[in-house]
This record gives sequence, structure tokens and C-alpha cells, in this order.
Amino acid sequence: MAGTGGRAGATRQRVLEATLGLFNERGFGVTVAEIAAACGMREGNLHYHFRKKELLIATLYERFQEEELAVAEAALGDAAAAESYAEYQLGWFALMWRYRCFYRDAFNLQHRLPGLKGRFMEVQARASAAVARVMALATEHGFLAIPAGRITSFVTNVWIVSSYWMDYLHTSTASAGLTEQQMQWGFGQVMALFEPYLTPAGRAAFSPLAQRAAALVLREKEPGARG
Amino acid sequence: MAGTGGRAGATRQRVLEATLGLFNERGFGVTVAEIAAACGMREGNLHYHFRKKELLIATLYERFQEEELAVAEAALGDAAAAESYAEYQLGWFALMWRYRCFYRDAFNLQHRLPGLKGRFMEVQARASAAVARVMALATEHGFLAIPAGRITSFVTNVWIVSSYWMDYLHTSTASAGLTEQQMQWGFGQVMALFEPYLTPAGRAAFSPLAQRAAALVLREKEPGARG
Repeated sequence: MAGTGGRAGATRQRVLEATLGLFNERGFGVTVAEIAAACGMREGNLHYHFRKKELLIATLYERFQEEELAVAEAALGDAAAAESYAEYQLGWFALMWRYRCFYRDAFNLQHRLPGLKGRFMEVQARASAAVARVMALATEHGFLAIPAGRITSFVTNVWIVSSYWMDYLHTSTASAGLTEQQMQWGFGQVMALFEPYLTPAGRAAFSPLAQRAAALVLREKEPGARG
Repeated sequence: MAGTGGRAGATRQRVLEATLGLFNERGFGVTVAEIAAACGMREGNLHYHFRKKELLIATLYERFQEEELAVAEAALGDAAAAESYAEYQLGWFALMWRYRCFYRDAFNLQHRLPGLKGRFMEVQARASAAVARVMALATEHGFLAIPAGRITSFVTNVWIVSSYWMDYLHTSTASAGLTEQQMQWGFGQVMALFEPYLTPAGRAAFSPLAQRAAALVLREKEPGARG
């Protein structure tokens, strides 16, 4: 197996980023030849680092799940500051945009890598529990007003809308790609779940979120932002 | 082709109901031989009515979509009575339970019958618009308090949570089947979306809904309720 440190590590990293970019743009149907071309390397060389495409998908998925847990369990800067919750939410939007191939093609993924289910369930349970703790804190500090007994069902609905938004787009619109405008629409759908529970203080912190989320998406589109 | 009236029509109807029951219980993987056995007929006879399994799925899906539009566009008994909205919502729960195979295996279905997308989009657009009109009426009559500009995003979130609840269960729990308890949990998730928007009058009408939805599910389980 290829090493993970030094030059081989840097190459692996570069291949993974290029692959993620292609999957995000065109789905998991991208061929190994196309990935090698995007990395400016020969297929044989790519093969040395990743024996087959399924290994690229699985490695990226592992990273996605690590980052998902990091985002879910991130410590709030200051639990008494509304801005901390906006930052937290923005972390989720950034994660979803960065790994949008996994959201858009969730079923395809499960089909390709059925062995992932156990890990998926574990990550989902941990991440949901962490989000519920943050929502409880936001309520405690007066930014949200969700009755304690309703936090779990609220978090579950946020999870479902976030996770399936892209699939919903796929089935309900004719467009094949995923535009920034559609992502903003998705962000708006998630924020609509928060809307009735925001206190005036919470609303003041959350209302600029849509613009900031859009900026995240646009930043990546700048020349040179992706390898 | 087999006729649709008289004795052939009755047989077709019986086959479709038995097939729906099997799909609901065990998914689209059920074989034609198993369907024939459940109908107490020979495979050749079943073949005379439906040339292949895809035709059974497509015919049931067409019925599902017709019933979906009927539920979405049902006239309210009395737009000034809270009970009318509870009845309307109950109609959706009954539809989802009756055709749960299509909700649980939505992706599998698209994979099997890719030609359905156009019709799916058309039905979804019509049904969503009808639901939005009912929500506007409920707001107008003081049972819900959703700002006019937020009704569309609210209906979209209700649609996403309703449509993907069963898939969410599939991916987040180890259980393969779909129990009444899980369906009630799903009903609860949809009702949690309404919760912050219910006025006291609306709450009084909607709170017994979970019990009535559960009763719908249990009724079907009574001996002799399914052919």
C-alpha cells in the first residue's frame, strides 16, 4: 500500500481533492481515467495510490464523516454570544457544500458501499446528540425558544431536511446539476425550520446567515480555489 | 391485453391489492411466483393479466399518484371548521401508509422506472400547490399562524420530512421492517413541523391526530382487512 507521509502523502491528498471536485461536479460516475487526467498523472500512477475507484469513494467518505463529527462536536466560542450559534450553523453549511456529492447521491453511495451502514448510524447518532446539546444551549441563553421535550424531534427534522434536500431537488426539478441558487434555496429551507423558534436576539444573529452561506459557496468558485 | 371490466377487471384488482400488500411488507424484491401464490393463481394466469413485474409496479404507482392528487386536492368539508384540516391531514397519513412501499423504496423505484420522473414532477407540483392553498385557508380561518410569505417553504419542508421519513429510518436504524411504532414516530415528526404554527384552536383539533393516525394503521392489521 502507498504510504501516507511525505511525498506520497501529498500526492494522495492532491488526488483526493481533485476526485472530490469531480464527484461534486459530476457524481460518482466519473471514471478513473478522468480522475488521473484531472490530476495530471498516468492511470498506473493513480492505481498505485488507490487500487480502485471504490477506495477513493470510501476514503473520501471516511474524511467526510470525521469532519462531520468535528463540525457537530465543535466547541462554541462563547455559549452566551448569538454569533457562536451562527458560526456553528455555518460550519454545517460549509460541510454540506464541500461534500455535496455524498448528500446528492446518498442512495447510490449506500448501494456502492453497503458496509458503511454501521459507521453511518454511529456518526449520525453522535452528531445528532451534539446538535441537540447546542440547541439546548441556544435555548438556555435565550436565542431559541424550543420546549425541552421538542428538541429531539426538531433536530431530527433539521437532519432530514438537510440530508435530503439535494435528493428532493433531483426528483422535483428537471435540472441535473446543483447551482449556487439551489444551495441557497436549501439553506433557506433549513433556516425556515428555525424561524418560528428564533427569539429577537436569535433572529438578529441568524438573519445574515443566508448571505454568509452564499459567500461560502461562491468563494470556492473563484479561480484557483480548487486544484 | 387483459380487459379491465367484469371478471378480468375483478381479478386485476385482486392481484394489485395482493401485490401492494407484499410490496409493503417486503419491498419490490418479491417475485412473480410469490405474487401468484398469494393470489392463489398459477404464474401463467398472472402473466396473462400483467406481462411482467415492472408492469405491476407501474400500475400501482399510477394508482398511487391518482390517489395522491385526490388527497391533495380534496375539498375541505367546511373551511371554517378545524376538524376539516385534521381530516385533510389524516387523508395524507392514510395514503402514505397504504402506499408505504413507494416511500420506503423511492430510489429503488426511480431506478426501476426512470421514465416516471416527468409524471412525478407534475404530480408533486400540483399536490404541493393544493397543500399550500389548504395551509393558507387554515391560516385565514385562524387555525394556523404562518406568515403568507412562508407557506411555500413550510409546505416544502412538510413534503421533504413526509417523503423521506422512511428512508431516514432505513439508514439510521438497524431495523429492516416498518413497524406501527415507527410510523407513529414519523407522524409525530410531521406534526412537529406544524407545532410552532398552531393557534390554540388549531392545537385543539390537531392534538388527537396522532391517535387517529395510529388507529388507521392498526385497522389494516385486523384479520381479514387485507386480501
